[in-house]
Amino acid sequence: MIKVTSYKSSNLHTYGLGATVTMEYLLKDRDAVCGVILHPAFRSEETIEKIRNICGDGIPVSTEEKPFNILSKKDNCYVICVIEKKETHILDGNHMVLVRPSNCGNLGTIARSCLGFGVKDIAIVDRTSADPFDPRTIRASMGALASVRVEVFEDFEAYTKRFPSNNLYPFMLDGSSSLQKTSIAKPFSLIMGNEATGLDPSFKDIGKPVRIDHSSEIDSLNITIAASIGLYEACREHAE
Amino acid sequence: MIKVTSYKSSNLHTYGLGATVTMEYLLKDRDAVCGVILHPAFRSEETIEKIRNICGDGIPVSTEEKPFNILSKKDNCYVICVIEKKETHILDGNHMVLVRPSNCGNLGTIARSCLGFGVKDIAIVDRTSADPFDPRTIRASMGALASVRVEVFEDFEAYTKRFPSNNLYPFMLDGSSSLQKTSIAKPFSLIMGNEATGLDPSFKDIGKPVRIDHSSEIDSLNITIAASIGLYEACREHAE
Repeated sequence: MIKVTSYKSSNLHTYGLGATVTMEYLLKDRDAVCGVILHPAFRSEETIEKIRNICGDGIPVSTEEKPFNILSKKDNCYVICVIEKKETHILDGNHMVLVRPSNCGNLGTIARSCLGFGVKDIAIVDRTSADPFDPRTIRASMGALASVRVEVFEDFEAYTKRFPSNNLYPFMLDGSSSLQKTSIAKPFSLIMGNEATGLDPSFKDIGKPVRIDHSSEIDSLNITIAASIGLYEACREHAE
Repeated sequence: MIKVTSYKSSNLHTYGLGATVTMEYLLKDRDAVCGVILHPAFRSEETIEKIRNICGDGIPVSTEEKPFNILSKKDNCYVICVIEKKETHILDGNHMVLVRPSNCGNLGTIARSCLGFGVKDIAIVDRTSADPFDPRTIRASMGALASVRVEVFEDFEAYTKRFPSNNLYPFMLDGSSSLQKTSIAKPFSLIMGNEATGLDPSFKDIGKPVRIDHSSEIDSLNITIAASIGLYEACREHAE
């Protein structure tokens, strides 16, 4: 069994915390799972049997307490899966593009919404962004990260060079076009900025900048909300 | 100055953590603010001056470290405001109705979206729900809770009895009507269930149950996402 250490982004492995996340990885990305650890106090026989069945002889399952103390002090967590980190490349099609997201929880929540609306390719722009392999990202995604492709790009140009025919929609507070009056053409790239600073003003000259109208009583919508409303609108059926 | 203790729901006061939240309360609900505490290491002279100006002679401002150790061990927080808890009553009009929400962060994030879409009245159904006055709720709302009305109802009937003419839209995974094909009539009540269990099946017979269509690859959207997409759709201009 792999030795569990507290997570660092330089590690070759990451961890899925919780039974839901573990089951998602076992069902959707089994090849990436190197092992499953059960807490000695875990009593859900049904889940344990399911896990053992899927793991079979190929994936070691152990029962020990220490990894939980290392990885999950506070959470109500009884199952951990050890996941091999694999570089993926995103494919042609509709994309979510996150420029310098800083919060792992937000990144995971957005990945879950992406999967929910059928957008399975997520581009992250630049290496200063939150780590898509961080156990907090994986947990917030509820395991959705087992089913989407995520690729980190050095800068925005590197992204557009690879996908020159995507229609670009930067989401900006002062976007020139109201989202609900914008028809989103496929293949689309919904582009979201950093939680605190948004997108750089230079994105005003890129594609079709859109805004989500809201009252002046708030500064902005939460990034996960803005991204999900963008997905909802982009994926809406227009033949009404 | 009020003695700061760790927060319990039985307290008569609660706390706004951070400069953003404090400024929101000072600007939008000044009467509720009983005091402001600055961290000795807080160096933003501009914010300190703004706070002192608004507080004037009426609201005490102190500088001390201890309350930060009690209330905010990990957060990057340099300003605390002490807030008097006041019961409010929601008014006629459009409502967000949350049935047994369990997570303070979600409750706060939804309050921020409500304010963003102009829905200023939030009903919470039953006393087992997350505490709308919890400092974590207030922080997640980014101070939006200073600008909305929140009322807790004993049960769902108590709510409908007070607002018999509201059009009820329970959000359910198996709702009979797709949100994007539903025209939401005002005054509306968007009704959301608990994070883990959703709404009780009995809500199927109440008003017009709606679903947000998503792929079968996820079990459900995050509650804050579902509530915000509901608000976005309910508030959209239909004269396109």
